[in-house]
Parts: sequence; C-alpha cells; structure tokens
Amino acid sequence: MNSKPLILVTNDDGITAPGIRMLIEVMNEIGDVVVVAPDSPQSAMGHAITINSTLHCHKIKVTEGPQEEFSCSGTPADCVKLAVNELMDKKPDLCVSGINHGSNSSINVIYSGTMSAAIEAGIQGIPAIGFSLLDFSWNADFTPLKKIISQITLEALSHKIPRGVVLNVNFPKLREQQIKGIKICRQAKANWVEEFDKRTNPMGKKYYWLTGTFVNDDKGEDTDEWALSKGFVSVVPTQFDLTAHHSIQQLNTWDL
Amino acid sequence: MNSKPLILVTNDDGITAPGIRMLIEVMNEIGDVVVVAPDSPQSAMGHAITINSTLHCHKIKVTEGPQEEFSCSGTPADCVKLAVNELMDKKPDLCVSGINHGSNSSINVIYSGTMSAAIEAGIQGIPAIGFSLLDFSWNADFTPLKKIISQITLEALSHKIPRGVVLNVNFPKLREQQIKGIKICRQAKANWVEEFDKRTNPMGKKYYWLTGTFVNDDKGEDTDEWALSKGFVSVVPTQFDLTAHHSIQQLNTWDL
Repeated sequence: MNSKPLILVTNDDGITAPGIRMLIEVMNEIGDVVVVAPDSPQSAMGHAITINSTLHCHKIKVTEGPQEEFSCSGTPADCVKLAVNELMDKKPDLCVSGINHGSNSSINVIYSGTMSAAIEAGIQGIPAIGFSLLDFSWNADFTPLKKIISQITLEALSHKIPRGVVLNVNFPKLREQQIKGIKICRQAKANWVEEFDKRTNPMGKKYYWLTGTFVNDDKGEDTDEWALSKGFVSVVPTQFDLTAHHSIQQLNTWDL
Repeated sequence: MNSKPLILVTNDDGITAPGIRMLIEVMNEIGDVVVVAPDSPQSAMGHAITINSTLHCHKIKVTEGPQEEFSCSGTPADCVKLAVNELMDKKPDLCVSGINHGSNSSINVIYSGTMSAAIEAGIQGIPAIGFSLLDFSWNADFTPLKKIISQITLEALSHKIPRGVVLNVNFPKLREQQIKGIKICRQAKANWVEEFDKRTNPMGKKYYWLTGTFVNDDKGEDTDEWALSKGFVSVVPTQFDLTAHHSIQQLNTWDL
C-alpha cells in the first residue's frame, strides 16, 4: 500500500462512547479515519437494519483529531451501509468496530451490534475487525489494549484477512503486563440461560426484564472463552456463510 | 414419540400476519401448538434482543383453533426466550418460525427476524425451522405451501435435525402444481447493493430511506437462489457457530 489506508470506524455503544474514542486514537496513527457511528447506544441490536423508518446523519466532531465524523440515527449495520454507499468517496481499506464495552466472545457474537457492523462490512467486501473488552462499564480502562489493537490491525492490513471472514477480537479485563498474548480461537459452544425478572407496574400490569446467566459447556482449549480465561486476547475468524455444509449430506437422506 | 409433539410457533411479521396464521393451521394438524409472537412487525431485526427496556406479554386468541397464543412486545429472539423460559411448562419438541412474507434466502438470513427466532431456538437446543415465501405482500397466497411445510416438519420430527443446525426453508412464489420439488442447498454468495434515497423534510433537514438491489454473483447450481429460480423449495442447513474453521490455520501464520 503506497498511501495511508482509509479506515472506517464504527461501534454500537454510540459515537461518544470512550471505547470508540480510543479506537479512533489508535486508527489515527495508522490511516485516514472516517467515523460513522450511531447517535445513541445500539447494544444487542444483532444485525438489525432500518427499513421502515428514515435515517438521519450529520457531520460532527466529538473529540479533537484528524478524523472525519458522522453521527447517524440507525443501527450499526445501517451506519456501515450509509458510510460505504453514501458518505465516503471511496471504499475503505478496512472497517474496525468497537471497542465494545463488554464481551462479544462465544455465542455473544450473534447478538452483537459491534460484530454486526464488522460483518456488514465483510459482506460488502471490506476487510473488517470487531474489538471488544470484557468490561461493561462506561469508564472501562481501554489503554492496555492500544498496542495490541495496533498490532492486529497492521497484520490484518499486510497479510489480508481471508475473503468472507471477519475478525472477532476480545480482550480480557487485565492490565497490559498481565495480558499473556494473542490466540487464534474458535467460538466456544456456550449459551445464555435466561431468567426473566417478572414485575408489576403501578397500574397492576405485569412486565419482564430479560436477565440471564452465561453457561459455557465447552471444555475445549482452543476456544475464545478458554483463551480469555487464561489471560489471552482471543481472535475468532467469523463468517457470514451460515451454511452448515457438513450436514448437507445427512439432510439429503431425508424423504423430501 | 408417544404423545403429540409440543410445537412453538413464532414469526417476525407480527402475531396477526396471514403467514403465521397459515403456519398455525398446519402445525395444529401435527402437534400441540403454543404461539408466542411479536405484537407488531419486527422485520429486519436480525438477532436483536431487548435488554434496555421492559417486555410485555399477554394471552390472546387471534383465530379459532386449539392453539394457545401469547402476544409479546419484544423481538422474535425475545419471543423465543420468553416462550421457553417463562411461558411454556416444558421445552418444546420443535420451534417453527414464519411463514415470512418475503425471502430469507442467501445473505437475507443475516438480517432476518424470522430466522433469528429459529436460530435462538437452536441455540437453546430446540430443533427449529424457519419458513419464508418469496412474496412480500400481506395478501400473499400461502395455501400452495401447506403440504410441503407439513412434509418437512414431519421429516424433521422423525429424522431429527442435526445438533447445532437450524433449517432455513424458502418457497418460490408459484402455484402448488408449479413447484418442482425440494432441494437441500447452500446459502448463495450474494449481497445487497444499497442505494440511499435522499430526501429533505419540510424543515429543510436531510434524511434517507434505505433501498437496495439484490446482487447474486454465485453461479453455483447447489445454492438456494439457484433452486428457487428453478421452481424448487430451498432448504439450507444453517448454523450459529460462526467460526470460519478453515481459516484458523492461515491466521496462525500471522505475526501475533
């Protein structure tokens, strides 16, 4: 690459979140940065897109720096679509999403707005990485992540991410010196066991809050959950061809 | 199976949609039916879940029949979580979602609320099938689908859907006699090319409508798009382990 790479930055926690601010800071060192991110938090939006209402978008500047910034009313996937098809003059060389305040490891990838933005970029043929920290708090400390985010991004730009693949990177909540390294992993087979918190409103009507417990039954030592629990950063190559190719043969024995 | 199977029915077009009414009719012939579906349309919601607001749910009866019905305020994935963890006495033997008014073939599976409900059931260890018809209209004719939906459901109950796999079934918009048969397929490699319809509101503020064109570059004759274009019903085994296992080896050569 002769010139600086053009990097699209987005997230799901909203354009003012500390996580995306740190990601912009790191990306400003690597390339020309355009930020297109939601104007409000969009966590757990999965791969939702806005088809039945209008989208708004305006140029803003949240923090100092060379980056160009747009705040949008849509979901993370909407932001990527708007960025690539409407707001940016040329196709970005890379899309990074995050840094998410909270884990997107294992089955969480399915519910994740952060990863849906990265996956949307992948669908559009743009190399993409989602970054998440295992710390839900707004004031999470993202500084221990800077060097590794930069390292992964530079490797991705030079080696090229395989086509049809998007990287899902999760960081353990540790200080920089405590991080043991980086592991390429598979998604752990885990799920949430929901417990609905049932309440009654002042008018006597029942309602629910969705809560749950994360259950990891996967004992493999090649999973993201395993790596994170041992102090490693996990990198899971994630795909959007959802075909279970291995089961096609079996289904062809059915009487259909 | 000695007794009748317990079947959870859901969708993303909302509990009153003609598509789910037809699906309930077919399932009432096969098992004991519990319907838990959104109280309003939730198309293109992807795998969104409701974590920052409350969920409401109430028993209703939309049409005559032996089924039990609940209308919920959440997304399709919320409905399945509520059904399984709160509303149903025992785990269903099968979850069916749809019949969706519109295609969920190829990359549409990623944006689909119909399929997110089926996938959520799959994650919870419940055999699941999403059904969609390539006709967006509210008054689409679902009668040509009845026999094949029944056939696929009975085969799924007797042969068992492989673990970690959910079936994505799409129907061409044809009369019953025109349907050529059923094909087990892989997801076609296709995508949407977005065109944003840019407008100005009466206050002079710009806004966008998301529109787009579906582009299928995949010439394979084993894809869902191919099967549908030739008059077949497509069945794609779909998984929620998103790991691109084939690329782990390559990523391990990176300097990380």
